[in-house]
Amino acid sequence: MKQSRRDFMKVSSLLALAPMAAGFGMSAFRGTAMASTSGAGSEAVKAGANEYFKKSPMASGRPFDYSMARRWAPNADLSDFASVFPQIPGGIAQDKLLKLAEEEMGQWMAKTQKSDEMQKRGMKHMPWGVFGCYQKDWETPHLLFAERCMGNKLWDVDGNEYIDLNFGDTPDMYGHGPENPAVKACAKRMLEDGISPMMGNEDQLVVAELLAENFGQPYWMHAMTASDANRYVLAIARHHTGRPNVAIPNCTYHGTIDETQKMMPEPGVIARWHDLGIYHGEVDQGTKIFNWNDLEGLEELLKDRTVAIVMMEPVMSNFGWAWPKPGWHEGVRALCKKYGTLLCYDETHTISGGPAGMIGELDLKGKSDFWTCGKAISSGIPGAVYGMSEAVAKKLQKDQGEIGFLTGAGLGFLGNALCGNTLSTLALRVTLEEVLTEKTFAKINKNVAYMKSEMERVNKKYKAPYRIETMGNRLCYHFIPEQAFEPLGGLIQVGFGGLFEFSHAYLWNRGFLLMPYFNMVIVAPQHTKADTDKFIAAWDDIVRITMNG
Amino acid sequence: MKQSRRDFMKVSSLLALAPMAAGFGMSAFRGTAMASTSGAGSEAVKAGANEYFKKSPMASGRPFDYSMARRWAPNADLSDFASVFPQIPGGIAQDKLLKLAEEEMGQWMAKTQKSDEMQKRGMKHMPWGVFGCYQKDWETPHLLFAERCMGNKLWDVDGNEYIDLNFGDTPDMYGHGPENPAVKACAKRMLEDGISPMMGNEDQLVVAELLAENFGQPYWMHAMTASDANRYVLAIARHHTGRPNVAIPNCTYHGTIDETQKMMPEPGVIARWHDLGIYHGEVDQGTKIFNWNDLEGLEELLKDRTVAIVMMEPVMSNFGWAWPKPGWHEGVRALCKKYGTLLCYDETHTISGGPAGMIGELDLKGKSDFWTCGKAISSGIPGAVYGMSEAVAKKLQKDQGEIGFLTGAGLGFLGNALCGNTLSTLALRVTLEEVLTEKTFAKINKNVAYMKSEMERVNKKYKAPYRIETMGNRLCYHFIPEQAFEPLGGLIQVGFGGLFEFSHAYLWNRGFLLMPYFNMVIVAPQHTKADTDKFIAAWDDIVRITMNG
Repeated sequence: MKQSRRDFMKVSSLLALAPMAAGFGMSAFRGTAMASTSGAGSEAVKAGANEYFKKSPMASGRPFDYSMARRWAPNADLSDFASVFPQIPGGIAQDKLLKLAEEEMGQWMAKTQKSDEMQKRGMKHMPWGVFGCYQKDWETPHLLFAERCMGNKLWDVDGNEYIDLNFGDTPDMYGHGPENPAVKACAKRMLEDGISPMMGNEDQLVVAELLAENFGQPYWMHAMTASDANRYVLAIARHHTGRPNVAIPNCTYHGTIDETQKMMPEPGVIARWHDLGIYHGEVDQGTKIFNWNDLEGLEELLKDRTVAIVMMEPVMSNFGWAWPKPGWHEGVRALCKKYGTLLCYDETHTISGGPAGMIGELDLKGKSDFWTCGKAISSGIPGAVYGMSEAVAKKLQKDQGEIGFLTGAGLGFLGNALCGNTLSTLALRVTLEEVLTEKTFAKINKNVAYMKSEMERVNKKYKAPYRIETMGNRLCYHFIPEQAFEPLGGLIQVGFGGLFEFSHAYLWNRGFLLMPYFNMVIVAPQHTKADTDKFIAAWDDIVRITMNG
Repeated sequence: MKQSRRDFMKVSSLLALAPMAAGFGMSAFRGTAMASTSGAGSEAVKAGANEYFKKSPMASGRPFDYSMARRWAPNADLSDFASVFPQIPGGIAQDKLLKLAEEEMGQWMAKTQKSDEMQKRGMKHMPWGVFGCYQKDWETPHLLFAERCMGNKLWDVDGNEYIDLNFGDTPDMYGHGPENPAVKACAKRMLEDGISPMMGNEDQLVVAELLAENFGQPYWMHAMTASDANRYVLAIARHHTGRPNVAIPNCTYHGTIDETQKMMPEPGVIARWHDLGIYHGEVDQGTKIFNWNDLEGLEELLKDRTVAIVMMEPVMSNFGWAWPKPGWHEGVRALCKKYGTLLCYDETHTISGGPAGMIGELDLKGKSDFWTCGKAISSGIPGAVYGMSEAVAKKLQKDQGEIGFLTGAGLGFLGNALCGNTLSTLALRVTLEEVLTEKTFAKINKNVAYMKSEMERVNKKYKAPYRIETMGNRLCYHFIPEQAFEPLGGLIQVGFGGLFEFSHAYLWNRGFLLMPYFNMVIVAPQHTKADTDKFIAAWDDIVRITMNG
């Protein structure tokens, strides 16, 4: 039985989520693939011209392993944030917590009135009053407007000062502004040179050499965004293998690409994330979906040899983190080899892991056919890269060369980073040479270790079964003691349904800019001990309150 | 009968194109949709997993009007550059001209040996030795590497100085470097502020207001590239109408988007531009193709009410320019209205037309549902915009709001310009306030008018039936006297098969950086009278030589 948006609103209000659904917006899956599965509906459902939800052999039929999720949220259902609220012994009641979250949010909104006015002014000429989708993803009652940001700080237009732990959702993760040498170098370049020669330059030769040395792939190309880098990799893989399909883990994210903006709300069902009818093609066209850490399920999907490429992150980082179980990466590699499927690691979010990202930390360097990265790898200057194996590069070069002019960037080959290219590649060069270094990470790792141990001390103090995890300069707090290896567990650990909402509203209201999507803190080289201690004190409050302390 | 790459090579060599096909690369359509039509083959042809060429009702069945093309190249065939060489009375023979082109190219290559070495070094870690596709689109025997560019000039790594008439393929069309106030403002901003706050700011409010005033659409959003802006418009249009298809004119270009990288090599046949198997989905999925200036053909395609949106340029500018015939734009608008189809003008290449682009010049302001632009509108800093009607914006905002979190930028709505957002939007603001002004265009228009009248004087002097056309600060030289209104005529006017190759090699070798794709000159505010006179002298040589003077 399909559940309409309106029906889901009713369910939400039954679960005492109505205030959040109306105000916060983040607690509701109204009209999403998840909402549609509530009530076990699984017939085809239309969104615009195409179905957005249907049974399909493109989705793994294997049962999900939700045993860990069930321990902490017995009635957890991917369709309903309220149901994924973790049941913590001694923890605060959900309705009480949602009320506190609402109060904190109300206070923050009250002291950001100029932002409110600016959003209202913006509504005259921009949907939601902002210029881009991602600026609205805070999903706060009114959106925030920035005056400026620098180093470790951000100031909003009302003059509120924040310790930034978000950094634009990672691109500026090595600090805002010219304290990052890559940004400083780019400003100097812009004053001295033009930035769009439409030719190669020496920086680019050096960058390709550094990338090869640092991340293992022998051949490299440049794109403007991480989404584009992934898009081009999928395209090259289809050409290389002559196969139509790509495969991704369930609940993964690889950018704004039609083929990867899909999920599997239940075994054997493939769906868009929502029913907004924006897509090109049928929901089960070109994409297979498997469960993270399920080798048998992956093998089922690869067996027919129609899958050109498996695309995944070294650690899945979409709802909190889902870690690879021992043997997972080796197994995926072996299966790809067995069935002639290529493999790509998307490191855009996990580059935080260390000087060579998580492939460096997990010993995966040079063990895939492609590697992609965007955002932070150019210190927030727009740009992205994709590396590929020699076999892929040689065939690509040969076939394109034989076809000639009409596979040019303009007419049907891949895209290109045409504007500001030398700016983007200079940022890459300086980031690789001066930012992504052992020295930078030595400092960061020390700060991160201190923050982690202090937060763990706080957890112990209040007997909170919470978990602190780190990935280089990214630190996550999770509201269950067990590490997550699958996406429903991932949702539960984030504390959706109350803990997530409260901790975010609390931190935002008290001057910490936490990432709006999940519980992630970025530790930049510019963060001081005073910043860290201030954050730890706030964490102490959060744990005390949520543990009824 | 399908023609293989190898077969087409044979045809090319029969036509004395072998040297060009081997060296220049631009004279051959080996392995392209065009090549496949040579010999009138039109059965389905596979590229990778999917057909890349097939008969389909998605392509207009209406005959092409090639009457003008036939006058100047009687055997012209979209599949063969050699055949589109215009037959000019008194003009030089094709084989002789190709030999001269080869000599000029050889000289240029000889004095750019350091570029050659750098490309060879680059080959170790980059396909073709360069970091991006578009850097290889010069298709010269070796590619060029830039030392720097500034104002009106570019210097390559061998120390050769060029008057730049290309400006990175338009993004820097108002001059390289900080002589453009938008670039200067961005450098200053980078030294004083961070650039990725993930929030709105005041620049963005001002930009949206300026865009609405200048280009007519009431609502605006931001993207990182022009391709993305177009991609999001297609997506929003599908959602708004609930229809699966988009429609584009034949031989148009709207970026690296699956749905628009298609063409119609003959009536009723739809094809990719080439047989590299990179694409997602079947060739005739989601795209209808009509002939530019053919209202009856367009109506045939719109009649079934499955077309969400028609996307086109105000003046088609892909192979030379194909102009709108009187009544074309009014007719398209009326048909879109009749069949409930939305309309988008892509102004990325035609923004040169004036302070309000070609929609300003052609009185099309506010007469479409969408308008998109990238590249030059942010003075070459990565960024693009898309404007939309109130009806579209309101529905989008309402539906996304009802669905909630899972249509966020991260999880399945549109993409976003996340990195360097405030840099990109500052560039937009300053470009709109200080660059795209009547004052800038008064200066540019004066220079362009002088260049045009001098080039026309030269044409007259040698009795050359050549044509000079302008679109604001873009000037094209065309090798037939008639204005083109369709793409085969467009190819012929460009002089492919000899005149194109010779004029480019000649100008490049003599210190003028002409756009590699076609005969376009950009006149920047920084170009001096000496630059212009030097160029006119070179044009005198070209006309004299090609007219056997």
